[in-house]
Amino acid sequence: MAEEVILLDFSPSPFAMKARIALREKGVHFDLREEEILSNKSPLLLQMNPVHKKIPVLIHNGKPVCESNIIVQYIDETWGPESPLLPSDPYERACARFWADYVDKKIFPAGQAAWLSTGEDQEAAKKEFIKGFKVMEGELGDKAYFGGERFGFLDVSLIPWFYAVETLNGCSIEEECPKLVGWAKRCMQRESVAKSLPDQHKVYDLMSEFRKKLQAQ
Amino acid sequence: MAEEVILLDFSPSPFAMKARIALREKGVHFDLREEEILSNKSPLLLQMNPVHKKIPVLIHNGKPVCESNIIVQYIDETWGPESPLLPSDPYERACARFWADYVDKKIFPAGQAAWLSTGEDQEAAKKEFIKGFKVMEGELGDKAYFGGERFGFLDVSLIPWFYAVETLNGCSIEEECPKLVGWAKRCMQRESVAKSLPDQHKVYDLMSEFRKKLQAQ
Repeated sequence: MAEEVILLDFSPSPFAMKARIALREKGVHFDLREEEILSNKSPLLLQMNPVHKKIPVLIHNGKPVCESNIIVQYIDETWGPESPLLPSDPYERACARFWADYVDKKIFPAGQAAWLSTGEDQEAAKKEFIKGFKVMEGELGDKAYFGGERFGFLDVSLIPWFYAVETLNGCSIEEECPKLVGWAKRCMQRESVAKSLPDQHKVYDLMSEFRKKLQAQ
Repeated sequence: MAEEVILLDFSPSPFAMKARIALREKGVHFDLREEEILSNKSPLLLQMNPVHKKIPVLIHNGKPVCESNIIVQYIDETWGPESPLLPSDPYERACARFWADYVDKKIFPAGQAAWLSTGEDQEAAKKEFIKGFKVMEGELGDKAYFGGERFGFLDVSLIPWFYAVETLNGCSIEEECPKLVGWAKRCMQRESVAKSLPDQHKVYDLMSEFRKKLQAQ
């Protein structure tokens, strides 16, 4: 039986970007279904992720996997063992998971706050967002990728947020994080990443609409 | 060289309980160091978890692992492959990770709010807390443990919170979640769990002190 792989997606979402990058790193053919998450969630999304009702959802032969870091680990454990995303050493694996969790817990909320707030609150949130990237700059050090010479799990987790910085927040981090800028250029040269990043103008327009909806609630 | 395994602990913490249970399930000998997290974090804790400055921290031969779910996975991948906590099937593993994440994202915040709030807010938080357990009751179904016949990752993740319910919030969930009550009894009969659960009165006293400090901040 041929495999059926569907990704319930929303192209500007950094969480969904992670899943797209991981699938493409592994050379998995998948059916990408764009959700109207702002206005009209599909019955399939509500059926496949009844708990959180959020994208991304990976549906593999009818079975759903939810939450982006869990999806990326599932992809890594299911396809392409010859090109693993997570390190084979349990300690290095724990470190990769720790920093991916840090990105979700610190960088995402600060970025969201920087996008949704105004005035002094926005300035404070931008500082917090940049602070998160500086921590990651220290973690990267002089390595090509976070795991060393190979593109891996933590690169997949961070690159969508890095891409979002300048698009959404008008923060320039060239001066603050020169090593991360070099790392991001390396990542974006990969076909898996380049194909997964949406048009920045489209992101800006969609996220502006998203902000209006959230602020109106 | 003999292994050195240290757990930086705070006995009433459900997060720390997970690490204690997992180490005992695997028969790992460890040096348990109680932290005074309310008043005086040790230099070792600040050195080993400079990012979050929180317990639990597992220190294995001098190297730290932080964040409870990551610690439990590290323990599972490092010791006792003959008694795995996570399922071997990637899809089942993704499901176990999803529900452990749900416990952290939904049950923990609702439990914390129920403990720290008062009046109507507290009643609402208690309802949310119980609702989370009812979702888990549905997920358990008629199985002995969440993964089937074997005690595993999701059991480790949930049992500390179940234990906290009646101690901290005065919520009785016997009527609402009869299957979970049976499951909890089975879990508590395990030596790994029984040895890891602190004295309920001690928890209550410590958490009351904790609440006062938080409310004073």
